[in-house]
Amino acid sequence: MIVRTLDEITDTEADVKSENWRSKRIILAKEGVGFSVHETTLYAGTESFFWYANHVEAVFITSGEGEIEDLATGEVHELKPGTLYLLNDADKHMVRPRTEIKCVCVFNPPVTGREVHDENGVYPLVTEPEAETTATV
Amino acid sequence: MIVRTLDEITDTEADVKSENWRSKRIILAKEGVGFSVHETTLYAGTESFFWYANHVEAVFITSGEGEIEDLATGEVHELKPGTLYLLNDADKHMVRPRTEIKCVCVFNPPVTGREVHDENGVYPLVTEPEAETTATV
Repeated sequence: MIVRTLDEITDTEADVKSENWRSKRIILAKEGVGFSVHETTLYAGTESFFWYANHVEAVFITSGEGEIEDLATGEVHELKPGTLYLLNDADKHMVRPRTEIKCVCVFNPPVTGREVHDENGVYPLVTEPEAETTATV
Repeated sequence: MIVRTLDEITDTEADVKSENWRSKRIILAKEGVGFSVHETTLYAGTESFFWYANHVEAVFITSGEGEIEDLATGEVHELKPGTLYLLNDADKHMVRPRTEIKCVCVFNPPVTGREVHDENGVYPLVTEPEAETTATV
């Protein structure tokens, strides 16, 4: 059993900050459980393009409001507490928080913490060699 | 892209109720993304034994307070908003919410929704045949 708090992660290398968002990675690939879990803050009034070509991501909103646009269809969905969006098809999307949004994000394959968004906004696939044998427990 | 709200799940078969807790399963094995995501309410003043012999589970607390006891070691950890516990070793544990707790739970392998706790409190391993080919995207 591993027990961690956001306070322990704050301002460590697992606390990743950008202009539009801040993501605290609580569980990463090195834990070897087949997914990673992040607590993410999206800043009010921002607009972000995301595209995870190599990862599935589920995002559950715990506070705040805004919208997500599916760039393949132009469809816009409301985001509010209790909404989950699942990017199960490498969906290119825009997120526009009207207020600050807090959310819990799950990635498969798990993020290692070494990924950076490339010029297309894509996370490259980086694997954690030591964890791979137990990644599909 | 799939977008779902807790309101859509309320009182459907994906809204599983017991004496001590209620779990709304938002993403299940049939989505084929390699994990399931549940929003769970643990009732104040209850005490529950859990043991997932066949699943890894991560639980992130979004509201409420209580404690978790690791039955292998007797160690007790505080639960409050921003705490995550990861059951990465089929950990037998007791959860004791002092107040109502809301949490987001992630399971690997994903729960199908057809599991029931057996006499030992264990979820049996049930697979979703149609999803299996894409379960490790």
